[in-house]
Amino acid sequence: MEQASVGDVSGPARVAPAGEGIGQEELALAARNHGLPLEALRYEVTPPGLHYVLVHYDIPATDADGWALTVGGRVRTPLSLDLDALRAFPAVTHRVTMECAGNGRARLSPRPVSQPWLVEAVGTADWTGVPLGLVLEGAGVRSDAVEAVFTGADHGVERGVEQDYRRSLPLPYATAGDSGVLVAYAMNGLPLPPQHGYPLRLVVPGWYGMAHVKWLRDITLVDAPFTGFQQSVAYRYRWSADDPDDPGEPVTRIAPRALMAPPGFPDFMSRTRVVRPGPVRLYGRAWSGHGAVARVEVSADDGLPPIPAEVASPQQHPWAWQAWSCTWTATPGRHTLTVRATDTEGRAQPLEQPWNRGGFGNNEVQRVAVLCL
Amino acid sequence: MEQASVGDVSGPARVAPAGEGIGQEELALAARNHGLPLEALRYEVTPPGLHYVLVHYDIPATDADGWALTVGGRVRTPLSLDLDALRAFPAVTHRVTMECAGNGRARLSPRPVSQPWLVEAVGTADWTGVPLGLVLEGAGVRSDAVEAVFTGADHGVERGVEQDYRRSLPLPYATAGDSGVLVAYAMNGLPLPPQHGYPLRLVVPGWYGMAHVKWLRDITLVDAPFTGFQQSVAYRYRWSADDPDDPGEPVTRIAPRALMAPPGFPDFMSRTRVVRPGPVRLYGRAWSGHGAVARVEVSADDGLPPIPAEVASPQQHPWAWQAWSCTWTATPGRHTLTVRATDTEGRAQPLEQPWNRGGFGNNEVQRVAVLCL
Repeated sequence: MEQASVGDVSGPARVAPAGEGIGQEELALAARNHGLPLEALRYEVTPPGLHYVLVHYDIPATDADGWALTVGGRVRTPLSLDLDALRAFPAVTHRVTMECAGNGRARLSPRPVSQPWLVEAVGTADWTGVPLGLVLEGAGVRSDAVEAVFTGADHGVERGVEQDYRRSLPLPYATAGDSGVLVAYAMNGLPLPPQHGYPLRLVVPGWYGMAHVKWLRDITLVDAPFTGFQQSVAYRYRWSADDPDDPGEPVTRIAPRALMAPPGFPDFMSRTRVVRPGPVRLYGRAWSGHGAVARVEVSADDGLPPIPAEVASPQQHPWAWQAWSCTWTATPGRHTLTVRATDTEGRAQPLEQPWNRGGFGNNEVQRVAVLCL
Repeated sequence: MEQASVGDVSGPARVAPAGEGIGQEELALAARNHGLPLEALRYEVTPPGLHYVLVHYDIPATDADGWALTVGGRVRTPLSLDLDALRAFPAVTHRVTMECAGNGRARLSPRPVSQPWLVEAVGTADWTGVPLGLVLEGAGVRSDAVEAVFTGADHGVERGVEQDYRRSLPLPYATAGDSGVLVAYAMNGLPLPPQHGYPLRLVVPGWYGMAHVKWLRDITLVDAPFTGFQQSVAYRYRWSADDPDDPGEPVTRIAPRALMAPPGFPDFMSRTRVVRPGPVRLYGRAWSGHGAVARVEVSADDGLPPIPAEVASPQQHPWAWQAWSCTWTATPGRHTLTVRATDTEGRAQPLEQPWNRGGFGNNEVQRVAVLCL
């Protein structure tokens, strides 16, 4: 008998053919992980338990007592920092909107088989911690270091590869003050919840969630770009359905998106909204990892020109979503409300999503079905 | 043109034929609502955000300031109680395990189309509030009252019926001290999170989640049994696939169940577990709404007799789950671990689930696929 291996329980990445419904494995992921219920867009800072969560393996059993963050590799002074040592650094708080790179995946056709998000994998929190640059300054980064590699305590198998969750960031980006990268120990003023990385996580403002390594236990400075699974195999844009050997391009910053808190009240099963005729206030949040959101437009698919929304200034919290609102005059019948953000660099949400094999960076406009009665 | 109605966005209850994958509507519910990641069974009290959540419509925009709980109907003195008035009553805290009545629905074949839970719709919290009996004593229940009807602030459409979420409990059960029914304003020592009913919810120890009305705004005493949608149409056991007019039996108390924190580490996509050969500690929680759990047994499907687990005493918290643990000696190869609870009234989890049309009260034993390497 051939010896068993982790590959026996870990299939290759797969794309579901058109018409194949969500399977039990995708459902098991959807039941564990969860998105932001869209009505929670009403909160500028997402209350605990409503922020999206994506855990690759298990939430590890961690304890702040005795936790050590080690810093090594191409440094002059390897460090081992406990929570007290990190709290002794000057604390910084950033309000950051975080989004899963796979958000929108289950709207693609054909559908990449993985965590099946629709549009709701997002949330905003106030993260408090130490600027990464200060931590690394203490260790003394050697001049040949090109990247910092971050290792979490979560351990599992993915596409046949047994691994600790591990990602890197380039230097000097990782340590620049205006990047805002933090080693965070508090979320909304409290210790991190277990599912958000207790006791320590990385926060990388403007980047998709895969960069914000949770349960952070080690930072290693390296003199060559990191090529681990989560950097070189997963989290790549591969635009072709036919070339499995395409190395792809790295997934990094968050593409612009606006979401609407669906108006009126819903049907339980279809989630279609019911509104009354007359003026309806529409509101939500919009964000981009490339800069501020410059414009949000709502259309009600009735041949009328889009309604420009008022968009809040990003000034106070440059890495957080911006509130937007407008008034729509509802008339009896069915409508599809569409909301679309454009950032200050001119990036606009696509009306139809370009497909990629991993289902990353999908920011097709949101569409909300409404019946006005 | 016929006039549109809420029925146009709200289809009848439906059972998916065998082989039909989870659809986009079920997925949208799975992305909003969420279960307990099973490794979180390690916590006696579920941390915020890991407790299961099921919201029928939207989480309403509520505010404790100005919130009024009205008490009326067959009472001598109708009341309107704000949060301060409720906090002036003697406070009681109960540790309660809550489970969704639809837990396990997506494992049924054919599958009732609704929130597609697998096994994870459970959680345990410390709920603080006022015994319902004290609140009703203040209002003076008239002798002809037979039930109390509880109305939440969540509003929506379900199977064509526009409604506020509303459920009843029989008197005198609702007010008896040993029923433990609470009007709760705190969860784990803090104000209720929005998704758990802020600022007020009913807690009905031992009953499935549908009884624990969230965003509680009114209690009305009535002189005839309540026949609203959530009481007489939804949340009924209907054992026949062929008789849609079957009134069914009411869903009330939680059937016994044990869950295991899956051992070892998982594969990301299949969630299959990997363990090493040798002794493996297996642990989890078990509960029943009919009394204490008397016995938990684990089998590893290898022809060996089941392993009896040690089960913690329910003494201190009679309405909370009980910890269980045992040691399994893993041998190389594939295994399916099965865990089964039996309560003190002799109710044991079924090895194969009897089917019902709504997919309620499913407590078929959990099965965990494990590869030992």
